[in-house]
Amino acid sequence: MRTLEEDMQTLAGFTAGGPGVTRLAWSPELRAAYDWLAGRCRELGMEAEVDAAGNLLARWEAGSGPAVLMGSHIDTVPQGGRFDGALGVMGGLHAIRLLREWGVRPRRPVWLVAFMDEENTRFNTALFGSRSFCGEDVGGLGGRRDADGVTLTDAMAAWGRDPERHGEARRIDAVGQYLELHVEQGPRLEASGTDVGVVTSIVGLVGYRVRVIGRTNHAGTTPMPLRRDALAGAARMVLAVRDEARRREDATANVGVITVAPGSSNVIPGRCELSIDLRAPSSQGVRELDEGCLAALAAIAEEEGLGLELEETYRVAPAPMSGELVEAIERAAGLEGASAARMPSGAGHDAMVLAAHVPAGMLFVPSRGGVSHSPDEHSSPEHCELGARVMARAVAGLVS
Amino acid sequence: MRTLEEDMQTLAGFTAGGPGVTRLAWSPELRAAYDWLAGRCRELGMEAEVDAAGNLLARWEAGSGPAVLMGSHIDTVPQGGRFDGALGVMGGLHAIRLLREWGVRPRRPVWLVAFMDEENTRFNTALFGSRSFCGEDVGGLGGRRDADGVTLTDAMAAWGRDPERHGEARRIDAVGQYLELHVEQGPRLEASGTDVGVVTSIVGLVGYRVRVIGRTNHAGTTPMPLRRDALAGAARMVLAVRDEARRREDATANVGVITVAPGSSNVIPGRCELSIDLRAPSSQGVRELDEGCLAALAAIAEEEGLGLELEETYRVAPAPMSGELVEAIERAAGLEGASAARMPSGAGHDAMVLAAHVPAGMLFVPSRGGVSHSPDEHSSPEHCELGARVMARAVAGLVS
Repeated sequence: MRTLEEDMQTLAGFTAGGPGVTRLAWSPELRAAYDWLAGRCRELGMEAEVDAAGNLLARWEAGSGPAVLMGSHIDTVPQGGRFDGALGVMGGLHAIRLLREWGVRPRRPVWLVAFMDEENTRFNTALFGSRSFCGEDVGGLGGRRDADGVTLTDAMAAWGRDPERHGEARRIDAVGQYLELHVEQGPRLEASGTDVGVVTSIVGLVGYRVRVIGRTNHAGTTPMPLRRDALAGAARMVLAVRDEARRREDATANVGVITVAPGSSNVIPGRCELSIDLRAPSSQGVRELDEGCLAALAAIAEEEGLGLELEETYRVAPAPMSGELVEAIERAAGLEGASAARMPSGAGHDAMVLAAHVPAGMLFVPSRGGVSHSPDEHSSPEHCELGARVMARAVAGLVS
Repeated sequence: MRTLEEDMQTLAGFTAGGPGVTRLAWSPELRAAYDWLAGRCRELGMEAEVDAAGNLLARWEAGSGPAVLMGSHIDTVPQGGRFDGALGVMGGLHAIRLLREWGVRPRRPVWLVAFMDEENTRFNTALFGSRSFCGEDVGGLGGRRDADGVTLTDAMAAWGRDPERHGEARRIDAVGQYLELHVEQGPRLEASGTDVGVVTSIVGLVGYRVRVIGRTNHAGTTPMPLRRDALAGAARMVLAVRDEARRREDATANVGVITVAPGSSNVIPGRCELSIDLRAPSSQGVRELDEGCLAALAAIAEEEGLGLELEETYRVAPAPMSGELVEAIERAAGLEGASAARMPSGAGHDAMVLAAHVPAGMLFVPSRGGVSHSPDEHSSPEHCELGARVMARAVAGLVS
């Protein structure tokens, strides 16, 4: 069995139990995994420590100047998979092992990081570790509690850490580039038979809560022309946002939540609420998609005689990856004989945070069936190994 | 103040309280209303009794042969209006008063009935009184309980009645025709400025529970062309059934319930469940609408790559009203100088049950804003009076 696959299997054993892997932020399982991983890093001659924000940072202090940082996260969603995040960290460790095997003597430091709480499952502190590492203010931490009532303060205290001091984790100024290997979590690479996805941008997101207001009425006694059916209007909106996304390359739109009131089979819905999630890889793409959808919604409400209320629930700017790192990854893929294709990342990652501060690059390996956040998440050992080798080649190019 | 309006106001006072009128089947409020109403009937020289199914039956035993029966129900939904059902009973009483004023000497008996539990709010025993009166088997009554856990057996025992003996209420064989005055509960008469609606048919209904099965996936990482979005398919179905109803005269279609799973803004819906309610005045109309909708659903599921499961939840045949009674009501309207228009009834009524056994006729008066089952339900005193007078003229024609 290859070393990377062994490491991935060992890491998967640090779990709170149940199907899949459950290794939540600030949990005892994550702490045990960190202890094991720190030992693996030290075996390779690296210094390893857990910083003030709960990131595990391992440093190969070679040469001088800004470090090349590889990493991702090893916290998981409840009953998640073995690969999301974990591959970026264990693949980074494997890349360092390869660099040593290949006799690479770096002119610059090569660091590896496992960021705390990328997944945002306990304290509504998404990307806590990478934001702290980059010196971003992560405020309002004191009162946060998880679903069991445990405060973030108590959870961090169990690790000997203090929320108020998370700013001490800032290390971004010592970093020159960031590289993150990840599973695609989507179906594109598998569908096209491509070995490696080279991420050009992490998409921007806009979220809305939409309320459509019609008139509740009896479903039998109200003639069709006299209805103001909130659900019929909402149905047109669902299809309109899909059309808007379909006609723009790499854009997506989703309505994942819909409710109607009063909610009886023989009553015409007087109100309908839905969520809209819009994504595109560029700021212009987000703006055009957003404007297109809002115009379509307003036109439908007008035509149907319905009221329309919109509330923006989230907005995250796209994070373009570094063009130089895109090319570096493509060259590295060529050296390893791996087929590669440029693509956006439709999901958020730690690289999204890092990209605002240093040149960042990401590479994907195929996900079986595009499945993620599930015990069924899978990427083949061959693809994982190849992804780590491509990352190692890219790092070698940067530090030689 | 006119007598009918006084009676309507008095009846509205028999309520469990709260906004509107709450006078549920087998409740003390309904019993008290029956006692008062029986007294009003006896003042007009009628015999009045509560039968084995909880119907209040008052009889003017004139002449011989089959009776002309007028009626409706005086049970209500919780926080319902003052007119739904009540107008048919109090209008019938008023019609008898008018017949006496006019000196009509009937050659046949003229009866008045308030049917038990038309509204179906407590024991899932819709139309219990009229079905029992018509000798229909209303089975499986023993174990039924209302939302408070009260059994039908106990509720009926409080009235000195026994569910097992509801069949003793059968009196349909002594009835020659049935006439029911009701509020429209829809907007047509008001919109067209018509005094009286002459019901040609009570629509047939078909209900479905529809399950659309797609594939749950990440809303950001799954490209639009690779999605199998259960909600997008369901949205097309909502619009398709609306289109099917819109292109058929007097047909209606409603989707009043919709739910999605897993129900998260950033997850593509893998499942969507919806209700479909289809109505049309004729058997052929129901069949064509039903077939049109099912074909559209199947085509959409096929095009979208979605699974489709359908469960029929209800099916009620249309109840055509008697052509002779339609004409009798129209003639009566002419005698009273009332404008009249033929129309289907989109809602169910006791007349739907009676029509399977004897010639039945219905007439509507305008509902303000089409509102019903609400404290805002309203029909003007003038329209109520006119409706009762038209019914009285129709009865006079039948018994003279």
